[in-house]
Amino acid sequence: MDKIIEPKVLKGFRDSLPEQEIRKKKMFRILEETFSSFGFVPIDTPALEYTDVLLGKGGGETDKQVYSFKDNGGRDVAMRFDLTVPLARFITANKSNIIFPFKRFHISKVWRGENTQRGRYREFYQCDFDIVGTDSPSADIEILIMMKTSLEKLGIIGFKIYFSNRGILNKFLEINNVKDKSVEILRIIDKLAKIGKEKTKGLLTELTGAEICNKILDFITPADSFDKTLNKLISLCNGDNAETERLKIIYKALRENEIENYFILDPTITRGLDYYTGLVFETFLEGNREMGSVLSGGRYNNLASLYTNEQIPGIGASIGIDRLIAALEESENKKPQNMCDCIVFNIDDELIGLLYKTAEEIRKQGISCEVYPESKKLNKQFAYAEKKNIPVGVIIGKDEKESGTITVKDLIARKNYEKIQIQDGIEKIASIIRETKN
Amino acid sequence: MDKIIEPKVLKGFRDSLPEQEIRKKKMFRILEETFSSFGFVPIDTPALEYTDVLLGKGGGETDKQVYSFKDNGGRDVAMRFDLTVPLARFITANKSNIIFPFKRFHISKVWRGENTQRGRYREFYQCDFDIVGTDSPSADIEILIMMKTSLEKLGIIGFKIYFSNRGILNKFLEINNVKDKSVEILRIIDKLAKIGKEKTKGLLTELTGAEICNKILDFITPADSFDKTLNKLISLCNGDNAETERLKIIYKALRENEIENYFILDPTITRGLDYYTGLVFETFLEGNREMGSVLSGGRYNNLASLYTNEQIPGIGASIGIDRLIAALEESENKKPQNMCDCIVFNIDDELIGLLYKTAEEIRKQGISCEVYPESKKLNKQFAYAEKKNIPVGVIIGKDEKESGTITVKDLIARKNYEKIQIQDGIEKIASIIRETKN
Repeated sequence: MDKIIEPKVLKGFRDSLPEQEIRKKKMFRILEETFSSFGFVPIDTPALEYTDVLLGKGGGETDKQVYSFKDNGGRDVAMRFDLTVPLARFITANKSNIIFPFKRFHISKVWRGENTQRGRYREFYQCDFDIVGTDSPSADIEILIMMKTSLEKLGIIGFKIYFSNRGILNKFLEINNVKDKSVEILRIIDKLAKIGKEKTKGLLTELTGAEICNKILDFITPADSFDKTLNKLISLCNGDNAETERLKIIYKALRENEIENYFILDPTITRGLDYYTGLVFETFLEGNREMGSVLSGGRYNNLASLYTNEQIPGIGASIGIDRLIAALEESENKKPQNMCDCIVFNIDDELIGLLYKTAEEIRKQGISCEVYPESKKLNKQFAYAEKKNIPVGVIIGKDEKESGTITVKDLIARKNYEKIQIQDGIEKIASIIRETKN
Repeated sequence: MDKIIEPKVLKGFRDSLPEQEIRKKKMFRILEETFSSFGFVPIDTPALEYTDVLLGKGGGETDKQVYSFKDNGGRDVAMRFDLTVPLARFITANKSNIIFPFKRFHISKVWRGENTQRGRYREFYQCDFDIVGTDSPSADIEILIMMKTSLEKLGIIGFKIYFSNRGILNKFLEINNVKDKSVEILRIIDKLAKIGKEKTKGLLTELTGAEICNKILDFITPADSFDKTLNKLISLCNGDNAETERLKIIYKALRENEIENYFILDPTITRGLDYYTGLVFETFLEGNREMGSVLSGGRYNNLASLYTNEQIPGIGASIGIDRLIAALEESENKKPQNMCDCIVFNIDDELIGLLYKTAEEIRKQGISCEVYPESKKLNKQFAYAEKKNIPVGVIIGKDEKESGTITVKDLIARKNYEKIQIQDGIEKIASIIRETKN
């Protein structure tokens, strides 16, 4: 006998069982339909790329997390670690075939050799949508509306989108002569929720002195309405500027769409990355802020600087798929997935042809229907149906065959409807399924 | 200025542009819906696995094609090169959480460092469906029916599924005392279509002698009907056996489902691999056999021998996604994809809020609708709509706003319907879309 190998999975990687995979596919379908309903189009890029194409001249924290190696042809290659770098590469490489402004979405796996002790996975999905090639406030509005609609369509309730504008913060830091420290300052602010106000104050004072620190703390403390918060920002910036005007335009449109209650202007939102230049946003589930943001992003003015000297502006958002799945599982109380609507039991191998023919008749009515593939004892077949959460069964024996009927079994209520004409039987099946879905 | 990097893609890898990606997603959705309608459930497995888990003790031709490397933790890892080995691994690892007989499908990317000169790609999709854990003829029947239904649902016309039974061939070789040469013999038969009858005859004679060669050639030459071909096989096997009986059961069920015309018993079908033990099948498009099989597979009796001593039987099929996409593109004359149903043009930035509100009203009727994100010249906006193949546009200016109307533009027929009430306007939009879809 050959040596048996243990069928183990790499640390940080996961199998997806049918229950989870069905849930995930439903979620992706809802998202894809929502994005498409806004005129966004899908793309895909390779899982493997040249290492220098993904990482540039290299360095930085990302590097160590990237799965990179030499392929059999001696090329330095790496598995993609996000969908933003591939988007930039894609846009530069396919420029002449892309319709700008380019509204695209991309749902796919990425790989990072992260420390799994923090509950992180090394293989996970990203779901990004961006509008590339325009700097207009209209694109900002569209992304915000699509964020709200996407979460609603997924059945997420009780979420708030917190937004701010990095351009206003930059203006404020400029006025206070600390623009050169902006990277450090915004990283400190970004950690506020995690480290608390006192520690933030300490770090900022150390960096900028007490006076500026107090001004910054004043700047990032939201007032109790959009208008009041914005007015404070305007006054701290010595009057209106292009970015405060832009926020007004955005909020006016949200109000006109009667969805402003989903959005909160919160100057503590900075997003840690250098990358963003305008609107930035994060989304928290009410009563579950510690889960972290489930949908974040912002405006950038130079997407593809790695590949071209041309400035390509855009705005994008990224959905935290794993977090949302966790949130949805909680809210649905892990209700088991219905893996099929109807099952035709097999009590007589002689009748196989008829069993499949009947199943096909049932499927024609939009009802998913399978045939149990062996004429095993019925209690084994019932146990199978129960595990797959199938609400209705059909029995066809010699009697049914002769009379052109079927026996329908309501597997939840445990009721039988014996020897009914096939079309009436299918009606009955449909009505039982409707009941169980309510 | 930093050094710019050329945004190039690895040889054998491809970007998927929106047009292609929309087409592919539609195809996957149809397949997933079909498989689910038969009670099949989806799974997923990691892209990366331990190298020895995927390759066993190594060796063989596959090895050189596999992307394998040492990860940052020093583990030997490899990217999956098919979905069959991961299925076997998955089943052994998750045995207690799987419902047997296990009907699963898996559509996902795999990677092979193949020679790209033969038009092969190094990253491509596989689409597999299997019934694992039963040896019943009923499972064979189900797989055959599902193959036929899947191709039909995809809109493939003119296909034939050629099938045979490796068990019968084995019996025949046993009777003729050449069972020990079966691997070589079936590989030669498998190449018949490629190398021609004369060359096949030469190779077989060399291997088995002239007499056996002639018997084999007789065995693999189909007669002009299922019954005649089967009867010849039975007589060449000195009478019925379990495998010829099984073929009768299968064909009877196909007849009872009135789909036997899609299936041809063809003993030249052997599938090169050792792996198969019973029913084997390949699918060719009529008039396009040189494209190769678009849907192939067969029955195996020992799926997971790498991981367990337990024999796990099953039957599975694999769809050649790239070939089918090529076939569908041909038959559709590359009709451009409609990337959105309706577009709201922007002629006045002051009205942005109203534009998005109107788009939302339109979407509520199940019509995908986008807003052009800038108030650019209308001819630029029209050009954008044309490139995205959008059939209807909406214009809202100050007049429309004041009168609570919209102007609807049929972008194909180039007709305007000016200032109509919004609900009537949406009706008009829906009717124009219906026309263009016919």
